[in-house]
Amino acid sequence: MAQPSLDVVGIGNAIVDVIARAEDSFLTDHALAKGAMTLISAEQSEALYDAMGVGIEASGGSAANTMIGFALLGGAAGYIGKVKKDTLGDVFRHDINAAGVRYDTAPASDGTPTARCLILVTDDAQRTMNTYLGACIELGPDDIREDVIADAKVTYMEGYLWDPEGAKQAFRKAQGIAAAHGRRVSLSLSDSFCVDRHRDELRDMVENHVDILFANEDEILSLYQLTDFDEALRQVRQHCEIAALTRGKQGSVVVGRDEVHVIDVAPVARVTDTTGAGDLYAAGFLYGFTHDFDLARCGRLGALAAGEIISHFGAKPEADVARFVDASARPLSG
Amino acid sequence: MAQPSLDVVGIGNAIVDVIARAEDSFLTDHALAKGAMTLISAEQSEALYDAMGVGIEASGGSAANTMIGFALLGGAAGYIGKVKKDTLGDVFRHDINAAGVRYDTAPASDGTPTARCLILVTDDAQRTMNTYLGACIELGPDDIREDVIADAKVTYMEGYLWDPEGAKQAFRKAQGIAAAHGRRVSLSLSDSFCVDRHRDELRDMVENHVDILFANEDEILSLYQLTDFDEALRQVRQHCEIAALTRGKQGSVVVGRDEVHVIDVAPVARVTDTTGAGDLYAAGFLYGFTHDFDLARCGRLGALAAGEIISHFGAKPEADVARFVDASARPLSG
Repeated sequence: MAQPSLDVVGIGNAIVDVIARAEDSFLTDHALAKGAMTLISAEQSEALYDAMGVGIEASGGSAANTMIGFALLGGAAGYIGKVKKDTLGDVFRHDINAAGVRYDTAPASDGTPTARCLILVTDDAQRTMNTYLGACIELGPDDIREDVIADAKVTYMEGYLWDPEGAKQAFRKAQGIAAAHGRRVSLSLSDSFCVDRHRDELRDMVENHVDILFANEDEILSLYQLTDFDEALRQVRQHCEIAALTRGKQGSVVVGRDEVHVIDVAPVARVTDTTGAGDLYAAGFLYGFTHDFDLARCGRLGALAAGEIISHFGAKPEADVARFVDASARPLSG
Repeated sequence: MAQPSLDVVGIGNAIVDVIARAEDSFLTDHALAKGAMTLISAEQSEALYDAMGVGIEASGGSAANTMIGFALLGGAAGYIGKVKKDTLGDVFRHDINAAGVRYDTAPASDGTPTARCLILVTDDAQRTMNTYLGACIELGPDDIREDVIADAKVTYMEGYLWDPEGAKQAFRKAQGIAAAHGRRVSLSLSDSFCVDRHRDELRDMVENHVDILFANEDEILSLYQLTDFDEALRQVRQHCEIAALTRGKQGSVVVGRDEVHVIDVAPVARVTDTTGAGDLYAAGFLYGFTHDFDLARCGRLGALAAGEIISHFGAKPEADVARFVDASARPLSG
């Protein structure tokens, strides 16, 4: 088997973010589930956009953020996801290409527009996401090419793919190809409400097909319907070769078959917007994994990348993150 | 004459910004004039966008930034500028409305798309702007309504309006209406290259029709073709009732007929991106002016608003700027 030319290929919902500050009362008034990702219709999207404040637009999508972060760290990344051929689709394509990610999924030429996610950031730096999936519903198994999946050490997928039916099929096809070629399969659980919606299928995936799992505390507790993090940790160790579980300010816990590492958060002067924290943690961790770093260093690199992203608005690195690769060899210090 | 219901109405090129970091070598390689605003064609815009890095999109345009800042400070602002009815036009309209600015200029329904400005931010926080004017060339005298201009204490216009011919005519019409109704006319010189392009007309405007002038050091020197700031200061005092001249890190100098104030910059932990510094200075200053603050306090409020904008990416306030109104009553301290 030839050596893969990509470290990782990500599959996800290709989305452009619209990010604005909001008061907590705005979330209450519009019945928005704080901290969650909620799917909304085109009409709801339009009404919420009209109501929200001055924003910035930036290409987004969980796995796309991870691939952009991965490429900016210096790794070789690819991406599969569906936009329409429209203005926001052009923005998405530009940014992922500009970061150096290989991206050649054919755009949808008709139907609904490129997906957008309306993100409200409250004073506590929490983000509340409202996604109109648009063209993402057009992603399907035909967009998954065997040569691309076989050409990456790791295939990384977001749990959000379970929402559109075609994307779920694409996910299963990609997982099968990766396994057949001896590549690794990695999954991020994405969102605890998403886990609620698709618990049985995601649990089957985690128990039988995922090598490297990413989840935050809420998501892993939801997956196993538990209330105790330590018990969830015990269960996940039986299923996945590697799991990286993030816990917000409490840092992360990384487990392999015979090891457990408790990783602190990176020091951050001021947390501005937590959008993309999990995505960039995964980027750092996967960079370490595909470059044969030990698991503790993978976790530290994840923490450093996440620390950069939460220090400013939006889910795209603003600082030179490649310097974190060396920094991750040393303990994180304040 | 009825009391005006608006403090200020701004007229400008309605633009959406695309902002990305760049190395100095990128500017050299693409022959871009660092720190300046350069007009580019649709083709040049496409080629430069392809070459530039991961960006964020945000509604922009100098006078529009000023009006948004003015409204977020708590003032009553209106805006006149031309977008097309397209995705970027919707973004522009959303943001200016969301800030609370009255904006009802009819969009162009055909022709070129909404204007965009490709902004490269280098490590020294300097911004280099490349503007494709698009639908801005459709702005003309018909877009200037007498009732709107008569309804604002101050009509504020950007020097960039001299670039598209129709906008220049709109500018002259607005100035005439304001004068006829006893309202104040304010001008920002915008850019020293823009002053070079239109020196004679801008100088006539400053000498005969402008009550409140905003300019940075390069612009005022270019206007009078001088090399000595102090001499430019002496000349401008003969022409304008009020001039606020900004000098980057050296702060600003505010002159009235019988007074001169030297205002320091506001303390900023880290200068990230100077895009919008002049626009927000004008917002703060005009808020003070239209609320009968003394000139020194107008300058301090300008400095505080500018200080917020340069501490992060983009030309839209992220912090609660309304608190600066009270803060401007006191000396700026580090």
